[in-house]
Amino acid sequence: VTDPLRVALVGAGRAGLVHGRNLAAGVPGARLVAVADPVPEARQRAAAELGCRLTLADPLTAATDDGVDAVVIASPTFTHAAVAVAALQAGKHILCEKPLASTLDEARRVQAAADGSGGALVMGFMRRFDAGFARAAERIRAGDIGDPVFVRSTGRGPGLPPEWAHDPQRSAGLIAEVNSHDLDTVRWLSSREFQTVYAVGRAAKRPDLAARYPGFVDLVAVTCELSDGGLAQVDGACPAGYGYDARVEVYGTEGVVMAGDALAGSALLVRADGAVTDPVRSWRELFADAYRAEDAHLVRVARGEEEPRAGVADGVAALEAALAVNRSLRDGRPVRVAGEPG
Amino acid sequence: VTDPLRVALVGAGRAGLVHGRNLAAGVPGARLVAVADPVPEARQRAAAELGCRLTLADPLTAATDDGVDAVVIASPTFTHAAVAVAALQAGKHILCEKPLASTLDEARRVQAAADGSGGALVMGFMRRFDAGFARAAERIRAGDIGDPVFVRSTGRGPGLPPEWAHDPQRSAGLIAEVNSHDLDTVRWLSSREFQTVYAVGRAAKRPDLAARYPGFVDLVAVTCELSDGGLAQVDGACPAGYGYDARVEVYGTEGVVMAGDALAGSALLVRADGAVTDPVRSWRELFADAYRAEDAHLVRVARGEEEPRAGVADGVAALEAALAVNRSLRDGRPVRVAGEPG
Amino acid sequence: VTDPLRVALVGAGRAGLVHGRNLAAGVPGARLVAVADPVPEARQRAAAELGCRLTLADPLTAATDDGVDAVVIASPTFTHAAVAVAALQAGKHILCEKPLASTLDEARRVQAAADGSGGALVMGFMRRFDAGFARAAERIRAGDIGDPVFVRSTGRGPGLPPEWAHDPQRSAGLIAEVNSHDLDTVRWLSSREFQTVYAVGRAAKRPDLAARYPGFVDLVAVTCELSDGGLAQVDGACPAGYGYDARVEVYGTEGVVMAGDALAGSALLVRADGAVTDPVRSWRELFADAYRAEDAHLVRVARGEEEPRAGVADGVAALEAALAVNRSLRDGRPVRVAGEPG
Amino acid sequence: VTDPLRVALVGAGRAGLVHGRNLAAGVPGARLVAVADPVPEARQRAAAELGCRLTLADPLTAATDDGVDAVVIASPTFTHAAVAVAALQAGKHILCEKPLASTLDEARRVQAAADGSGGALVMGFMRRFDAGFARAAERIRAGDIGDPVFVRSTGRGPGLPPEWAHDPQRSAGLIAEVNSHDLDTVRWLSSREFQTVYAVGRAAKRPDLAARYPGFVDLVAVTCELSDGGLAQVDGACPAGYGYDARVEVYGTEGVVMAGDALAGSALLVRADGAVTDPVRSWRELFADAYRAEDAHLVRVARGEEEPRAGVADGVAALEAALAVNRSLRDGRPVRVAGEPG
Repeated sequence: VTDPLRVALVGAGRAGLVHGRNLAAGVPGARLVAVADPVPEARQRAAAELGCRLTLADPLTAATDDGVDAVVIASPTFTHAAVAVAALQAGKHILCEKPLASTLDEARRVQAAADGSGGALVMGFMRRFDAGFARAAERIRAGDIGDPVFVRSTGRGPGLPPEWAHDPQRSAGLIAEVNSHDLDTVRWLSSREFQTVYAVGRAAKRPDLAARYPGFVDLVAVTCELSDGGLAQVDGACPAGYGYDARVEVYGTEGVVMAGDALAGSALLVRADGAVTDPVRSWRELFADAYRAEDAHLVRVARGEEEPRAGVADGVAALEAALAVNRSLRDGRPVRVAGEPG
Repeated sequence: VTDPLRVALVGAGRAGLVHGRNLAAGVPGARLVAVADPVPEARQRAAAELGCRLTLADPLTAATDDGVDAVVIASPTFTHAAVAVAALQAGKHILCEKPLASTLDEARRVQAAADGSGGALVMGFMRRFDAGFARAAERIRAGDIGDPVFVRSTGRGPGLPPEWAHDPQRSAGLIAEVNSHDLDTVRWLSSREFQTVYAVGRAAKRPDLAARYPGFVDLVAVTCELSDGGLAQVDGACPAGYGYDARVEVYGTEGVVMAGDALAGSALLVRADGAVTDPVRSWRELFADAYRAEDAHLVRVARGEEEPRAGVADGVAALEAALAVNRSLRDGRPVRVAGEPG
Repeated sequence: VTDPLRVALVGAGRAGLVHGRNLAAGVPGARLVAVADPVPEARQRAAAELGCRLTLADPLTAATDDGVDAVVIASPTFTHAAVAVAALQAGKHILCEKPLASTLDEARRVQAAADGSGGALVMGFMRRFDAGFARAAERIRAGDIGDPVFVRSTGRGPGLPPEWAHDPQRSAGLIAEVNSHDLDTVRWLSSREFQTVYAVGRAAKRPDLAARYPGFVDLVAVTCELSDGGLAQVDGACPAGYGYDARVEVYGTEGVVMAGDALAGSALLVRADGAVTDPVRSWRELFADAYRAEDAHLVRVARGEEEPRAGVADGVAALEAALAVNRSLRDGRPVRVAGEPG
Repeated sequence: VTDPLRVALVGAGRAGLVHGRNLAAGVPGARLVAVADPVPEARQRAAAELGCRLTLADPLTAATDDGVDAVVIASPTFTHAAVAVAALQAGKHILCEKPLASTLDEARRVQAAADGSGGALVMGFMRRFDAGFARAAERIRAGDIGDPVFVRSTGRGPGLPPEWAHDPQRSAGLIAEVNSHDLDTVRWLSSREFQTVYAVGRAAKRPDLAARYPGFVDLVAVTCELSDGGLAQVDGACPAGYGYDARVEVYGTEGVVMAGDALAGSALLVRADGAVTDPVRSWRELFADAYRAEDAHLVRVARGEEEPRAGVADGVAALEAALAVNRSLRDGRPVRVAGEPG
């Protein structure tokens, strides 16, 4: 029997608690050994709920502790790079929530650290672990739709992310925080790279936030050119209010495949005044199985049994696309994803 | 009892026969009195099938005949304007298949003729007559989704349109021939006008046709800015092979409404090797009820009982947007829909 | 060109008007020539709406008139047999609404008249003309589910049938008036005959009607043994309130096929408080296409181009099963469908 | 912090491994401490996979061991009663797979033992823990469908249960082994008790097994009368081949609610030759979340924090109904569920 992977959780916010709860409930071969969060109440509440003895204020301590084998990075985006680089240099494995970092420089520093390290980095693109999305990928790999020339991905979140995510100084905004998943899905399911993106966005629901944070959008629509003649469209919205909505459609030369369902798993009520079912309330609920599978995958990656299903290069690529979307929003024109100044 | 509306059918091709068969089967208050098509076999076969005595080679004769009250224009796009102007000047009512014309000049001539005429023009945007699409419109008008800030419309046709539609000399291409419906849907369901469009396109399935007809695309993805801060995305493909696929989704500040279903009305087979249903084979089948409703609407418009659900201004606006999409495809940049040189 | 089939409509109630409106709108090869209904207002209102000159008080006159080629019988069930026998003896073709008659004796008199007549009888089992149900039948005939050993059919009507249908003196009740369709579906899709039925029923919503009409039920559940080892279940309810609901599921040795959808063809609204679509309001709406196809089928049967898709023997068999269900309800035990005294 | 609940697994077959894997992966507050199975290879393979040190040949030893707080009984049905009684008398808590026992006498002995014991018994009716079924229950409790007067439940398993389940000496057959869940669902969602049942059954796919085990059926259709005027229908099949299929529909005086979906969570592929999705392969997959929730529920029941969602009385009632179904199958008549000799 292998010793369990000793995991430190960095960031006890919403996404952090999803991983923390999975680890506390039991991920085979893993054990939660530390929770790090600079906010005292957050880390203490998390530690109590998760039954974790060791709490730390400083993520870097957790990232380099000798008693830690792997780090789940779920802290605010602007902290990812420092923690990830330190952890990789200390030979730890990483599960990093999206986006990989706030800037491309940071992201490349992480990539360089990963390349020279014994540790592996798994990007938290949990849609790759969802049964429906994964089945779509299988269908495509099997050639069922011919060449996947067009991907359409929708990502909408019910409620606003934390406030730092609206601040352009600390975040790459909606497209990075919410629609990183869609950008990754486009690359994953098309087996292509982004070439150009053109985006339009609005503060359709929260003009107040646009007034406070110039460039804030809560609605975005992107059209992309991909390598090998592929095309893609992404639309994102947050806060959408009605639920978490993640759907994809891949059009190929021989057919189309669709995954994601905003209504999965509920009961249907039919009355004279309408037929009603429940939208999915949150990403925690919609992707509960996917998060569990992702956490289990981290263990197998750490053991060298699997390659990261989404790795550091995927994190860099999704961020590069997100930043290009932001440039396009700012400049009102299509931009090349690679090789343009930010 | 009113005398029946005497209808001439101009164009005995695919769309023409849909209207012709409806009229032959019986549209209350209407009677098919003439079929005009310059191709002798086409008009004779149609006349035989439709039980119509009078056949004409020249559409203009049909459009101005004293024994005709209304003209269904379903001939190739490049012929629409001449027939429509003649018919309107003769005081006839018109049901015109999309797109209204090949160029904006032509379209405006039709509009001018309509404005000074006793005849009304109904644009053949049959999605406005489909139960699901119409219900979505009702929901939106009722405020069920708040402000409809984003429309996403998909239009895919199973097989190629006739060859003239690929020729830039005679047609405005895929976006005009297939996705005029989507462009109209965007305006209709958002209650907004197009401001800018950015489009990318490919000859993903038929590079051979792109070689023969420069600018030919069989896959197109468009991102649009609308008035009052609205956004839209349209994706189109033809030939899609798998069926006719027309779906729309309207995201509003209070929710989302969706219409269109590529699988409607069939049986579901579940076996160990998969669960199978049938895609919708054609627009004739998917919109059979809508075409009937549209033809019946023509009668009521001719009687002055209803305003055209989609009129000449809607035809002009959809064409203007389609031509802007073509400019964007050509120039690789976002373009203003109005006021730019073609 | 053949002369059009001259059709008389007998019964200007709900079902009668469906056929009448189809004929008035135009069924290729048919012409509505007379409306017969003993209720003056009903026949006059129908004649006005349907644009029909000839109205008659006496159905028998219509059924035997020289100017009539075919009769659509949509009058109350207890009048079917007399009209059908007279019409068949006069060589007319018949489209008879379900159930064929009120008693087996009547039904057999109709069958005898049909056997010795030049006229054909089409039973109004319109589900056989619905695209989804017909596709299920095709799948089964093609062997896609192996041997269809079990059929489950649901039939629910939104509102109560006319009052005579509750009166055991004049009607065979809910199972005959509403669920005849299900009984026919069982035979049709299993290619088997009823052997025994066991039924339980309740006046779950309208105990008041049970008090007035002993034996009245508004909810019924039937389990059947079929020939060749087949089994079936039927459940019926009327008034169901929420809509018209007709669904079938056929389980075979190699898979299952399902048809019917209570939600077909509407828009889906998703909001934070639920996802809502519209139930189908009525059988007129759900089966509008099927009724049109059925009326067109009558023309082709009259011309000798097609055999009745559901004929007099199917009408007899469905009635025999319905009457057996009523015996089972009365006696509280399984009963043989054939050969038992009523 | 409470000490974890020490759980022994009795029976290392299919259902046993579902619970065992959940416990090995980590059920909060529980720890797997022993695996008991008389078959040496089964218990050793399970122990290795589950990382469990203590293996036992004799279930009774596990059921009474001092180091055990709770017992998951997933051994063959004919062994349930002895293990359950011993465990309850030793004060253990129990999660018992369905059916509770093979005979009513056994079931009542378990009930008596539970009544006089400090241990609680949770029946393994995992549908009660499924999100969709539970939501249907909530809707019904909230009055959304009025009085739930009719329940229709479908339960089909893809592959045959182990051979002992076909042997009338050791099992109550298909209806008990597969459709206990449906019988429980009827009671649960209607809030009513069974009064009479009438059943028909066939060996439609496996006549060979009927030859070997008289009374064997692989297809069964049941119609039930419930207390307070309720009605129900259950249909079951095993082996169904195409997947695990558990669906319910509850018709009430104000509407209908449906739960269960044989196609949940997969991708939809649309091609010219059909639209394909995947049926659910197994109950393990369909109810994975429900089994986890059930195992977590056991912990809370053991701690006194919750009442069993399905308890020993529910197990007795479902078995009583299953045995009545078998009597009806044998005698070909409706039978009373309670108070008749077996």
